[in-house]
Amino acid sequence: MTDSTTSAPGPLVGWIGTGRMGVAMAQRVARAGVDLTAWNRTLSKAEPLKRDGAAVCETIAGLRGKDVVLTMVSTPADLEQVLLGEGGLLTDPGNLPGIVVDCSTVSTESSAAMRVACEERGVGFLAAPVSGNGKVVRAGALSIVVSGPKETYDKVAHLLRHIGRSVTYVGEGDLARLVKIAHNLMLGVVTQTLAEITVLAEKGGVPRHAFLEFLNNSVMGSAFTRYKSPAFVNLDYTPTFTPILLRKDFDLGLAAARRLDVPMPVTALTAQLVQASVGSGRTEEDFSILLDLQAAASGMTLKPENVVVDDGLGAAAGKDAL
Amino acid sequence: MTDSTTSAPGPLVGWIGTGRMGVAMAQRVARAGVDLTAWNRTLSKAEPLKRDGAAVCETIAGLRGKDVVLTMVSTPADLEQVLLGEGGLLTDPGNLPGIVVDCSTVSTESSAAMRVACEERGVGFLAAPVSGNGKVVRAGALSIVVSGPKETYDKVAHLLRHIGRSVTYVGEGDLARLVKIAHNLMLGVVTQTLAEITVLAEKGGVPRHAFLEFLNNSVMGSAFTRYKSPAFVNLDYTPTFTPILLRKDFDLGLAAARRLDVPMPVTALTAQLVQASVGSGRTEEDFSILLDLQAAASGMTLKPENVVVDDGLGAAAGKDAL
Amino acid sequence: MTDSTTSAPGPLVGWIGTGRMGVAMAQRVARAGVDLTAWNRTLSKAEPLKRDGAAVCETIAGLRGKDVVLTMVSTPADLEQVLLGEGGLLTDPGNLPGIVVDCSTVSTESSAAMRVACEERGVGFLAAPVSGNGKVVRAGALSIVVSGPKETYDKVAHLLRHIGRSVTYVGEGDLARLVKIAHNLMLGVVTQTLAEITVLAEKGGVPRHAFLEFLNNSVMGSAFTRYKSPAFVNLDYTPTFTPILLRKDFDLGLAAARRLDVPMPVTALTAQLVQASVGSGRTEEDFSILLDLQAAASGMTLKPENVVVDDGLGAAAGKDAL
Amino acid sequence: MTDSTTSAPGPLVGWIGTGRMGVAMAQRVARAGVDLTAWNRTLSKAEPLKRDGAAVCETIAGLRGKDVVLTMVSTPADLEQVLLGEGGLLTDPGNLPGIVVDCSTVSTESSAAMRVACEERGVGFLAAPVSGNGKVVRAGALSIVVSGPKETYDKVAHLLRHIGRSVTYVGEGDLARLVKIAHNLMLGVVTQTLAEITVLAEKGGVPRHAFLEFLNNSVMGSAFTRYKSPAFVNLDYTPTFTPILLRKDFDLGLAAARRLDVPMPVTALTAQLVQASVGSGRTEEDFSILLDLQAAASGMTLKPENVVVDDGLGAAAGKDAL
Repeated sequence: MTDSTTSAPGPLVGWIGTGRMGVAMAQRVARAGVDLTAWNRTLSKAEPLKRDGAAVCETIAGLRGKDVVLTMVSTPADLEQVLLGEGGLLTDPGNLPGIVVDCSTVSTESSAAMRVACEERGVGFLAAPVSGNGKVVRAGALSIVVSGPKETYDKVAHLLRHIGRSVTYVGEGDLARLVKIAHNLMLGVVTQTLAEITVLAEKGGVPRHAFLEFLNNSVMGSAFTRYKSPAFVNLDYTPTFTPILLRKDFDLGLAAARRLDVPMPVTALTAQLVQASVGSGRTEEDFSILLDLQAAASGMTLKPENVVVDDGLGAAAGKDAL
Repeated sequence: MTDSTTSAPGPLVGWIGTGRMGVAMAQRVARAGVDLTAWNRTLSKAEPLKRDGAAVCETIAGLRGKDVVLTMVSTPADLEQVLLGEGGLLTDPGNLPGIVVDCSTVSTESSAAMRVACEERGVGFLAAPVSGNGKVVRAGALSIVVSGPKETYDKVAHLLRHIGRSVTYVGEGDLARLVKIAHNLMLGVVTQTLAEITVLAEKGGVPRHAFLEFLNNSVMGSAFTRYKSPAFVNLDYTPTFTPILLRKDFDLGLAAARRLDVPMPVTALTAQLVQASVGSGRTEEDFSILLDLQAAASGMTLKPENVVVDDGLGAAAGKDAL
Repeated sequence: MTDSTTSAPGPLVGWIGTGRMGVAMAQRVARAGVDLTAWNRTLSKAEPLKRDGAAVCETIAGLRGKDVVLTMVSTPADLEQVLLGEGGLLTDPGNLPGIVVDCSTVSTESSAAMRVACEERGVGFLAAPVSGNGKVVRAGALSIVVSGPKETYDKVAHLLRHIGRSVTYVGEGDLARLVKIAHNLMLGVVTQTLAEITVLAEKGGVPRHAFLEFLNNSVMGSAFTRYKSPAFVNLDYTPTFTPILLRKDFDLGLAAARRLDVPMPVTALTAQLVQASVGSGRTEEDFSILLDLQAAASGMTLKPENVVVDDGLGAAAGKDAL
Repeated sequence: MTDSTTSAPGPLVGWIGTGRMGVAMAQRVARAGVDLTAWNRTLSKAEPLKRDGAAVCETIAGLRGKDVVLTMVSTPADLEQVLLGEGGLLTDPGNLPGIVVDCSTVSTESSAAMRVACEERGVGFLAAPVSGNGKVVRAGALSIVVSGPKETYDKVAHLLRHIGRSVTYVGEGDLARLVKIAHNLMLGVVTQTLAEITVLAEKGGVPRHAFLEFLNNSVMGSAFTRYKSPAFVNLDYTPTFTPILLRKDFDLGLAAARRLDVPMPVTALTAQLVQASVGSGRTEEDFSILLDLQAAASGMTLKPENVVVDDGLGAAAGKDAL
């Protein structure tokens, strides 16, 4: 990568992975006027980016010469495939990108392996997982945590800022993966505590929508408590994240804690409650079914309140919303 | 209270209690142009309100004829004293206020007793505890949860909106007290989980200020996580809320849960960790010492990072901040 | 009480309360050749003691002149009634017993009140709760924990030794009540851990009766694990102790812990699981339904194994036992 | 192995591993009149068995032709070494034992690998871990849990009964390993609950020795609570089992629970408390330091009571015992 990255006319950027999250993120980069070319296994999912000024290429080979390539895929196996598999980004020694920035949620081990593969080829590598979902991206509220060589980070920070509200550099290597896992542990604990206090308030006589409205406006309110509120109020458990996926993050987090000799009592207990939610058999629903389990343990069966609830992401969500 | 409450020239409002929180709240009411008269046991603490256009009276008797009187005192005993003690607001049957709105944090029992005392005298009573501290008030970010007769609430809602960002009505009677306690349970659990994940990240190599910066910007970030960040980063445990006070709220919350047959596993575990922080003997410091206990259990001794941290309330806070 | 207590011909002993536990305990005293007179509200329940050489009296007044009177009743209210109610043991100032030994399970507060009532009248008082049920008594395996004045204890220790296998003096005042509560907390935690590991073993392929046979014979085996085994194996939840009663002991224990500034993380968590068992609505069954809840959280429905299981109390118990 | 196993003159038995536990177990077999030959890496540790009528051989080769060989070694690696390493028991295809019975505590995976190695060579294999320590063995109170082919078990059951008080067959394969791990989870939880209630009682005024005397005699008392009592009373933390070793069993147990989809809330919480004891840095002491951690969290520093305490294994143990 040359100086062109940090000055006009700007870097040539590639994008791999235009699923629900990826397309929303890439869109923001394209709309910022960056020279962007995208690839996706199912090509049709990348097409909408053309409306935002991006190009779409039919093979990953089309991205090999870019200054920076961002990846946003589903699994560690996918990441390895697009980088090192047949026709992968790093498979032509004579045509390599300058920097790879991976925004996927993969384990520290997988991240480290990809880092080695990049560095062996003289390609910079940054781990850059994100906090938020597709709706959060579109609301401009995504946050990104980045680790890797500081000078590599400095070269792409301006690009990442197009994607979301905040970009935080936390250090060398794959530390950003640990930070993302820690974030997801908090997400689990906060959901369980929301379940406990929401059921307490409801059994005491306070409707869930009223309780959560106060909480969301209080100092305890977060983007997360707000966008989970419609599910809690109207019991719409369409999955954004399943109990199985959350359990996986608790597995990773508690394994890291074990390795680092850090006891995590509240986290470990929550992990067991998440496990119990898996045991309920409702593994295809959103992990907010923790609310239902809490209610059952309290001798209650909840009913949807059918109230329009602001999810804090720019649109009211509710059973009776249009 | 006549129609004057809801139309020009506006209601006559009294304020009892101008401590750190009270004075900041009253100031916002006065600055909104409301006709406000304040009283405080230590009169000098009310004086600053004059600059905002409020009057100050020397005895509570001066507030008896007001349309609405708001109270913001420290303990249930104080509340009872200013309402029913010698020279109290409700002690002259021929001269009574229209509505009393209590913003203090008192138990459901104490609230119910004051409600009865008011209603026996034909005075409306609303329970209206708040979420936030003095700094939150000044930042205009306070939230208020209200319970009591709906028509009483409708008469004063516009007044309460001057005080903070949000006002939520949750139902009849003293339900707002339960909501406030539930909110404080979450505050305790979130602090413990922050302690667990911050220590995990730090032991893994991520500085606390970097970790919390990401978290605060992420979907998990709240006003609370932001204003606790300076304490976590720089280990300044000047108390805003002590372990003893937090334990009291857990006592109240778990007693309510017991009464309502609601199991609260994560809350109950956190209560024991708060109890352990009391056992450490550091009862005069902020309850964020939960971080130190978590570090000790992880075999670490934390050091202040001496980094300026944004507390999200309009001013960067730090060891080396002015 | 004169020297007669400790030498021939032995003290005159009274017994109040011949329910399921009481009659079995009194029987052992009578069979030891002690001069025993019993009273019970429902007189017929005391009659069987005559076969063991005891006398039965129609009113409590008949016990007032005894050297020692033991009480074994159901509730604090019952205890107060038989001591201080109309026609009670302590209501004739001219005719009082030497020592009252209460073996009931009552709170520390109730115990202290009865102690004062006795001491005001010059009557010695010992708190002497027991560990075990009727079957344990008959098997000669009851244990007794005693508190009160040491010299009072020394006068009756030989009598108490007739009742069970062990008698332990733990100190002054009502300390024995705290010890009994602590014992019951352990009973709850051990049951929950038995539920967790039994389900783990079963889901792994080990029948419950085989698992518990090993455990009962191992160093972890206790009289308790043995006599709970038939319930765990054959799912016979005929109550010996209900979730509501166990929860009451956790309430008392955690209140004592709170008062003494002792965090009890595992105890507090178990209390919530007991609360969840109450929430299941199965409040008329034995608290060993904790096993069913654990199984449900593991996605299993248990079936009775219909195996004869030794309960360790002298008789094999089982679905197909005679 | 021929019929000789079950009739006169009895099987030829080999023994590998005569450490503290192994020598005590082998001794009991030898004293029962069984034809026993022992080997140990440090040969001198096997010598004492000669006094009990056993032979000692200098190489494992001397045990290859035995009907049954029992192994009691420290680690999975040791087990693999003595069976498959250079000069190992199974390394001469022409000279193999009939049955291998492994009494060591190894993981299910390691057990399964040894099972395969045996079965490939036509050698029977039983997993037979034990509950107890050297002192328990000498007191004749060891219990053994066995899994593997039922007909193999039937051939050696009589031999195993010489070793301890009870032998329980739980099923095929390596199930006995899971049972042993489950047993150790209970051991951890019971120790933590003992710590919690002992500190509660002591802070309430009951000396530890008095409290534990009652508990040990009560229905909750077990061989384990009895032999841990001297440590709890006199704070002698000479290790029998370290926090690191206990943590390893919790790791194995919770991994099994995760694999089997069994939530274990109380177990998982205890695992974190054990982790905190590791964090205290006292990793060379007995895991009963859980008591000290509980005391510290309660604001107490314990002192040895210097009281002779019966450990239930045939000898009173105490600071001032001879």
